[in-house]
Amino acid sequence: MYRTHTCGELGLSEVGQTITLSGWIQRRRDFGSLSFIDLRDRYGITQLAFNEGVDAQVLTEARLINRESVIQIEGVVVEREKKNKVLETGEIEIRVTSIKTLSSAKTPPFTIEENTDGGDDLRMKYRYLDLRRKSVREKLLLRNKISMSVRTYLNSNGFADIETPYLIKSTPEGARDFVVPSRVNRGQFYALPQSPQTFKQLLMIGGLDKYYQIVRCFRDEDLRADRQPEFTQIDCEMSFIDQEDILNVFEGLLRHVIREVHSKEIGSIPKMTYKTAMKKYGNDKPDIRFNMTFVELNEEVKDSDFPVFKNAELVVGINAKGCSNYSRKELDVLTSFVKQPQLGMSGLVWMKVDETGIPNSSVNKFFNEEELKKWMTIFNAEKGDLVLVLAGEKAKTQKALSELRMYLAESLGLRNPMEFAPLWVVDFPLLERDEDNNRWVAMHHPFTSPKTEDLKIIDSDPGAVRANAYDLVLNGNEIGGGSIRIHEKKLQSKMFDLLGFTESEANEQFGFLMNAFEYGAPPHGGIAFGFDRLVAIMGGDEVIRDYIAFPKNNSARDVMIEAPSEISTDQLETLSINVIPED
Amino acid sequence: MYRTHTCGELGLSEVGQTITLSGWIQRRRDFGSLSFIDLRDRYGITQLAFNEGVDAQVLTEARLINRESVIQIEGVVVEREKKNKVLETGEIEIRVTSIKTLSSAKTPPFTIEENTDGGDDLRMKYRYLDLRRKSVREKLLLRNKISMSVRTYLNSNGFADIETPYLIKSTPEGARDFVVPSRVNRGQFYALPQSPQTFKQLLMIGGLDKYYQIVRCFRDEDLRADRQPEFTQIDCEMSFIDQEDILNVFEGLLRHVIREVHSKEIGSIPKMTYKTAMKKYGNDKPDIRFNMTFVELNEEVKDSDFPVFKNAELVVGINAKGCSNYSRKELDVLTSFVKQPQLGMSGLVWMKVDETGIPNSSVNKFFNEEELKKWMTIFNAEKGDLVLVLAGEKAKTQKALSELRMYLAESLGLRNPMEFAPLWVVDFPLLERDEDNNRWVAMHHPFTSPKTEDLKIIDSDPGAVRANAYDLVLNGNEIGGGSIRIHEKKLQSKMFDLLGFTESEANEQFGFLMNAFEYGAPPHGGIAFGFDRLVAIMGGDEVIRDYIAFPKNNSARDVMIEAPSEISTDQLETLSINVIPED
Repeated sequence: MYRTHTCGELGLSEVGQTITLSGWIQRRRDFGSLSFIDLRDRYGITQLAFNEGVDAQVLTEARLINRESVIQIEGVVVEREKKNKVLETGEIEIRVTSIKTLSSAKTPPFTIEENTDGGDDLRMKYRYLDLRRKSVREKLLLRNKISMSVRTYLNSNGFADIETPYLIKSTPEGARDFVVPSRVNRGQFYALPQSPQTFKQLLMIGGLDKYYQIVRCFRDEDLRADRQPEFTQIDCEMSFIDQEDILNVFEGLLRHVIREVHSKEIGSIPKMTYKTAMKKYGNDKPDIRFNMTFVELNEEVKDSDFPVFKNAELVVGINAKGCSNYSRKELDVLTSFVKQPQLGMSGLVWMKVDETGIPNSSVNKFFNEEELKKWMTIFNAEKGDLVLVLAGEKAKTQKALSELRMYLAESLGLRNPMEFAPLWVVDFPLLERDEDNNRWVAMHHPFTSPKTEDLKIIDSDPGAVRANAYDLVLNGNEIGGGSIRIHEKKLQSKMFDLLGFTESEANEQFGFLMNAFEYGAPPHGGIAFGFDRLVAIMGGDEVIRDYIAFPKNNSARDVMIEAPSEISTDQLETLSINVIPED
Repeated sequence: MYRTHTCGELGLSEVGQTITLSGWIQRRRDFGSLSFIDLRDRYGITQLAFNEGVDAQVLTEARLINRESVIQIEGVVVEREKKNKVLETGEIEIRVTSIKTLSSAKTPPFTIEENTDGGDDLRMKYRYLDLRRKSVREKLLLRNKISMSVRTYLNSNGFADIETPYLIKSTPEGARDFVVPSRVNRGQFYALPQSPQTFKQLLMIGGLDKYYQIVRCFRDEDLRADRQPEFTQIDCEMSFIDQEDILNVFEGLLRHVIREVHSKEIGSIPKMTYKTAMKKYGNDKPDIRFNMTFVELNEEVKDSDFPVFKNAELVVGINAKGCSNYSRKELDVLTSFVKQPQLGMSGLVWMKVDETGIPNSSVNKFFNEEELKKWMTIFNAEKGDLVLVLAGEKAKTQKALSELRMYLAESLGLRNPMEFAPLWVVDFPLLERDEDNNRWVAMHHPFTSPKTEDLKIIDSDPGAVRANAYDLVLNGNEIGGGSIRIHEKKLQSKMFDLLGFTESEANEQFGFLMNAFEYGAPPHGGIAFGFDRLVAIMGGDEVIRDYIAFPKNNSARDVMIEAPSEISTDQLETLSINVIPED
């Protein structure tokens, strides 16, 4: 037996007991005839005490063992003279009577403490050492807690966890597939699923009624920071429901998870149309923990002499409450922010309201005090406020102001990671224009149903058709998205047609689904949550990588195991494939 | 709103209520002015009643709708005159006041009832229709129930569900990998995991202490009947434990699952060494629901004149209690069974004990009554028993007799699928001989630790070294297997050396693990269960395919979606690979 207790559970009530512990040496402190070891395991840290006067032999042995070695000790629980209030086991220590090394450690490549000296790359390479740090371990344990909480909720609501295949069929639609050559079926390939979308729909057609799965998905996209080639989704589907039913069930899920994980209550989740979100926040995933909503000025400035405003498609601003004390320098930083190439604005107009209620602006030349006072009314700007205005092409200006709003909120401390403000964004457009390829693409995916009342304009004005699609937004992040699906062959064919599929392409790729619609398909819909992101936000973070046990780097490599790697010519031959030599 | 209730919940207490139901038309029965529809959903079947006298219009509409169409009805719950005792909702029916077709169905390609007329291939192609059959649906729901039960047990025992990567590194050891070409890392490949073995060990080295995952695994093997290229494993690992701890925890898991699923109690699970299992059952996964254990006759027959026995490495038999009434023809069937090419025995010797206690055998020429009476004692054969004896090369004879034992038990009805008789088989050999390649291979896997007391013979007699390895056997099936792992670099290197790895091969493939052992590795071990098989056995079956939502056929094809399939030249080029044309 390696232990009678873990390193996280001993306290005053065990004083006097002889116990056995096993764990890692986190740290040793030597003082003349005394030594102390912090012994660590998953559950906590317990202080081991060694005293020359009590047992010189054990003290000598203890001093020979390296940090991060795994040891087993026997000893007696004693009350500490100086208690440690931070440590759970801080009221006691162990007077060690015997010590044994189970596995000795070389000096680790970085310090395994909360403030590590290890850079990202080094910690990725030695991920198994980084996992020993409490904050990293706790992220994985939080993930486990959330997944169990999700399962408990969904199971108790009648959802069945049903596993769908990982070796499926490649479809050119959407993102790039990872493919898997088939040895048995020469020249043919499986694809790894980007999501179990069609399978969950087939499960509905098969009468399973309520499905869920916490499932790995794969996308071979060019990696941006914090995007992983494999990621995890909470994937759900229901039959005989409308949009309202789905929003209710999954509002319940989020409420349940936040309650179990943080003992917090969220109220009823507000709903906002896509149109409103874009108008008020310039963004389809607004962070509503703070206001600073958009105010359009076009009407007010249309007759001004200020050319930037006069010719702009959109003139729009926000009111940064209480920021009139921003210095010239601080305003310059904001201006540089909106002028960065990714946002590309030509400048930033500001108006300060001073302590006497008088406005002052960077465009005093073009707007007199009376006009600026009108702005004050529109922006609801009071003494001490700072109004920031951008102008230009609509989409670009919305994006820039939205980013500026987030940037300001971050620096004003308005984004408290432990405040959870979910929001449903609804009534998304069905289609969006892919200008590069001059075609329509599905905003959600090709299986999303259009709103019945918009069907009449589907040919005349497809871009204006709204979908039965919804996103769940949390603190400015999309954590889930879904839709009511098409369940009729005719409408599905129409949709593929709009998306530029020929009939034979549609049949070849999705014939099995369209056929299935002909044998009695229930109305159905669902949602999928990005599990990695959900967990990160629950952990008070927005970076997902730390919440994945063995993440890949930005080149899609696992630097710990060195994957991907070359494979043998034999293996390639067995699969009937060749690597094309580089030019 | 599509329904106020499901098709499985209405009873006498709802009589008089106006309700809405949605579902599939399972069947319609028309009688003059009356029609009845069995409306089906996941939860059950409710009878809908249509009466010309009550509403002729609704009756007419109902008669126009095809079987398997999806309809929505409104109506009133009424008590049935003739109650159906079999159906949960059999005490009531619905007097329908309005009917609406939500999705009309073509005639399905096979009958969607318990006794379907659909062959295997057709049902695979239209899996979404087969899923509508109650028995198929219930298999998937059983799977869901078991997975949740497993999770509840493991979580409450401190195990954390931690997701390991699917895109990993290919290693030539063991079965063939499925590989995934990397676009970003030209000429390199990921592999899909055959199991998360090395990752779970790294999690232990990372201090996670108790890990589990219900995880998909992949093996590109030539498919035998009922083997899938992707399969699901319950994968578990623990630190600071010995073999006994693991057996206790997972005995608890099986007890918990059988209790939750079948409300049955299993006693303490017996343990049997590999050696005993082979000697008494000729098999390392004995079905202990019945006896019929092996009895060796070598000693008794060594001086006989019967050449088949005299020269045999092993002479061994079983006592089929009460089978002395087997006819010549029945005995011929048994003889053909052991002579089939897969077993390859040259014949079967039998001895019957008649109602007066007199033995009679197929080898009366060589053994007199006195000698046969000795056999009776050895086999504990009494009036009415049938002793069956095989002789030949040891391994082959063990296998044949083991198969004969199972065959007999099956035909004698000794294998009650609802009786659960688990067994731990322990002390497996560390290595087995691969005669084809003249080398040792790991019987479990290369990370399994040898028994400390056998280390002294690891060089002189490696084949005799026992491993800290164990299998959990249920009703003659291996449902789980595991081991205490090696956690020292030196021993792991020794093991790779025994398995014929050069040092550089070992380093290239498993260097990350051996390095990890040098930074403080806890003693650890684990187990993995074949989830598909576990679920099938819990369902009273041994065929796993039906317990998988979307299984592949014996050519590793999904015939429903037609995968694998060819991919475009563009896709291949992006991945820098070519398909080698067939000669």
